[in-house]
Amino acid sequence: MTESLEPHRRTAWRAYIEASQRLFTQLEDDLRAASDLSFADYHVLVLLSEAPGQRLRMGELASRLVFSPSRLTYQISSMQRRGLVAKQACPEDRRGSEAVLTAAGLLTLREAAPHHLASVRTHLMDDLDDDEVAALTRIFDRLGRRLRAERSPHPSES
Amino acid sequence: MTESLEPHRRTAWRAYIEASQRLFTQLEDDLRAASDLSFADYHVLVLLSEAPGQRLRMGELASRLVFSPSRLTYQISSMQRRGLVAKQACPEDRRGSEAVLTAAGLLTLREAAPHHLASVRTHLMDDLDDDEVAALTRIFDRLGRRLRAERSPHPSES
Repeated sequence: MTESLEPHRRTAWRAYIEASQRLFTQLEDDLRAASDLSFADYHVLVLLSEAPGQRLRMGELASRLVFSPSRLTYQISSMQRRGLVAKQACPEDRRGSEAVLTAAGLLTLREAAPHHLASVRTHLMDDLDDDEVAALTRIFDRLGRRLRAERSPHPSES
Repeated sequence: MTESLEPHRRTAWRAYIEASQRLFTQLEDDLRAASDLSFADYHVLVLLSEAPGQRLRMGELASRLVFSPSRLTYQISSMQRRGLVAKQACPEDRRGSEAVLTAAGLLTLREAAPHHLASVRTHLMDDLDDDEVAALTRIFDRLGRRLRAERSPHPSES
């Protein structure tokens, strides 16, 4: 069902989509086994840990995660129940709210990170030579920039 | 939180994971808008359409999709309700069951495929030069083969 892609490109697309889905499932299985976190939980913890004051507005977080507002609300509520994040009104805008990393969230991330990175290295990165690392960066850096630019006028429609 | 990866590899990993998540969200949004299918629905339709007799055992389908048995049951039930697939006992093993593509499922796939491929080309493939296509194939073909080999002793534990 991919007849309209030239054969080499069809092969590349299929290899990429199938291996990536398999990789993400494997990484998430490893994360859950070692740290009881989903891929989305981990990504939220990383984004908050790197933000100034370890906090982000919900809209910004939704756009970084490419989550719809309802999916983000569900995600953050689940992490709140587990004590990993707190939610509070924005200091500069009372109608907005932001997600704040808790100390428990930071400690969970610090404990999970080495396991997760070992799994990223084992399953993907240690197998790549320097040229492949450079190709990966070139392709996906460009793709990420293009997709962010295409989506940015409608961040809440995702 | 990726300190234990050498900086160039950390950049490559982040570019890949972030752009890929964004791409899959975009492709799924496009699929839903054009055809009311999720990414998983589409993938099931493609796999069944390419299988002999347009049917696959549930275990084989779960392993190809990297779905747990319960996630696959949920996925196939949802597609059954929409008339896209049927489920029946395996002719050669009455205890097993298989998913069968219906005519409506095939027609839905045929209608969805050109839109989906256009979206794959627009967002990713048309922007890659031949060297990048070759790199993508090399990296992800090797990754896919390695992950399948690692997982194959325990296909039902995913």
